[in-house]
Amino acid sequence: MIGKLIAEIKKKKAPIVVGLDPQLKFIPDGILNKSIEKYGESLEAAGDAIFEFNKGIVDAVYDLIPAVKPQIAMYEQYGLPGLTAFKQTVDYCRSKGLLVIGDVKRGDIGSTSGSYALAHLGKVTVGSRTFEPFGEDFATVNPYLGSDGVKPFIDICRSEDKGIFVLVKTSNPSSGEFQDRLIDGRPLYELVGEKVREWGELCTDESGWSNVGAVVGATYPEMGKVLRDVMPKSYILVPGYGAQGGTGKDLIPFFDSDGLGAIVNSSRGIIAAWQKEQYAAAGAENYADAARCAVLDMKKDIGEAIGL
Amino acid sequence: MIGKLIAEIKKKKAPIVVGLDPQLKFIPDGILNKSIEKYGESLEAAGDAIFEFNKGIVDAVYDLIPAVKPQIAMYEQYGLPGLTAFKQTVDYCRSKGLLVIGDVKRGDIGSTSGSYALAHLGKVTVGSRTFEPFGEDFATVNPYLGSDGVKPFIDICRSEDKGIFVLVKTSNPSSGEFQDRLIDGRPLYELVGEKVREWGELCTDESGWSNVGAVVGATYPEMGKVLRDVMPKSYILVPGYGAQGGTGKDLIPFFDSDGLGAIVNSSRGIIAAWQKEQYAAAGAENYADAARCAVLDMKKDIGEAIGL
Repeated sequence: MIGKLIAEIKKKKAPIVVGLDPQLKFIPDGILNKSIEKYGESLEAAGDAIFEFNKGIVDAVYDLIPAVKPQIAMYEQYGLPGLTAFKQTVDYCRSKGLLVIGDVKRGDIGSTSGSYALAHLGKVTVGSRTFEPFGEDFATVNPYLGSDGVKPFIDICRSEDKGIFVLVKTSNPSSGEFQDRLIDGRPLYELVGEKVREWGELCTDESGWSNVGAVVGATYPEMGKVLRDVMPKSYILVPGYGAQGGTGKDLIPFFDSDGLGAIVNSSRGIIAAWQKEQYAAAGAENYADAARCAVLDMKKDIGEAIGL
Repeated sequence: MIGKLIAEIKKKKAPIVVGLDPQLKFIPDGILNKSIEKYGESLEAAGDAIFEFNKGIVDAVYDLIPAVKPQIAMYEQYGLPGLTAFKQTVDYCRSKGLLVIGDVKRGDIGSTSGSYALAHLGKVTVGSRTFEPFGEDFATVNPYLGSDGVKPFIDICRSEDKGIFVLVKTSNPSSGEFQDRLIDGRPLYELVGEKVREWGELCTDESGWSNVGAVVGATYPEMGKVLRDVMPKSYILVPGYGAQGGTGKDLIPFFDSDGLGAIVNSSRGIIAAWQKEQYAAAGAENYADAARCAVLDMKKDIGEAIGL
């Protein structure tokens, strides 16, 4: 699976992923009102508006990018109708040829992690038939429970040709509280990074890269540099570009010298671009055009920084 | 909220929670076949069978126990129909007077954790109306992202009178891989336990206990003893009893001398009791009676150990 992602990154010259993390405040009133006309003031209306909004964004940017990263929390907060919109979004993005990284940050003890892995990357059987519950291509995974919480995901990666990104160093301000604590002189995130390398060796594909990648926040470039070396065959998914403070030149350490090895996410910087002064001129109804402009600017910023 | 849980524990003399973690292999053929007759071989049939199975268990044990703990992964693996069964289960348990601990192990950066907190413990607004998306009373939370991943849950605990249990030391064999690593001479789980105490001080209720509890596996009683002291006002949710290997006397260290301070979960030991030789005599159709017998035995085992 990682080979497919790399092929798309090269084809589109864009180590970029758009985070589909819709909040109702990002959705133009016209879309939400239409959904409320259809479904009343309800969770169904929220789910419908979210999916309509996402479709507009995806239609406007799918030719520019290899992948999207829907953050499931933003859907889960609208209950079952929200999760219906998540599933519709995954299906719609795949129908447009995009790879889908489910940002689900799941992780549990072995057998339970196995169920999460099936839910997001695998297939389940009922009677004599099999079904793909959510059907993402990649999922993000929390490592706090150790190898037996992660390995069921790796088993599915191998059998279904899927991928994961394990949280190593997250982009938030208090990520250091546990992740940076020193163990035998080295921070916990490095030990997690070493495990990622070890897990990744079980699961390399034809590209030479591993289906086990890592999440490292754009807000910590110096740690990105170290981790790039610790996990030489693991792609790094880099959140925190734009709204969380990272810029193109901060991203250089996450990449290899050939421009491979990392993929950078921006969420609200793209999907809520229409609310930023810089892109606001066309108005709310052209929110998708604003998203396209923001993707083009992000591509340029990162492309110039890493010499693409 | 923790005060309500303690009152129910005292009333029922049972520091016990039943884990509603249904797998299709635990469900008697009669139930699954009936669902397949209604919905065909489909995810809907799986969801329907799970909810019917759960109802039987809940009807048989609700008078004996204060709370249930549905593990959302077991539902999520059947996609949207599985999550529908999760929501139905939460609603049904609450209608029977049970408190519901959503075993969701969510955790993300601040704003995203806020959405998970709303999803499981809070309310969301669409237009002028508010909705409870999943409506559990407690949720389990993963601490790897640090304080700003946990605090949005605490905010909701305070505003909605809800509770959380933060993963401190999990019951699985490889939990030590990161959780036991020494930092300044003390294991990571102790540092997480100290944070739980600190977070918990923000959120103590009329019982004197905190709405911020901790998860510590029954399989690690010596660590339970240390953590009981590190977090004196935090209830400990103890998984791993029974099927994972813990027994009644292993649980003593998790409790205070007055029998408070911990609540012990058993999942397959109860819901799949009918498949164990000891309870199998009555047959698959009486699976719920087997669950009731297993709860009574668990109550006795733990009650004798802690002197209830």
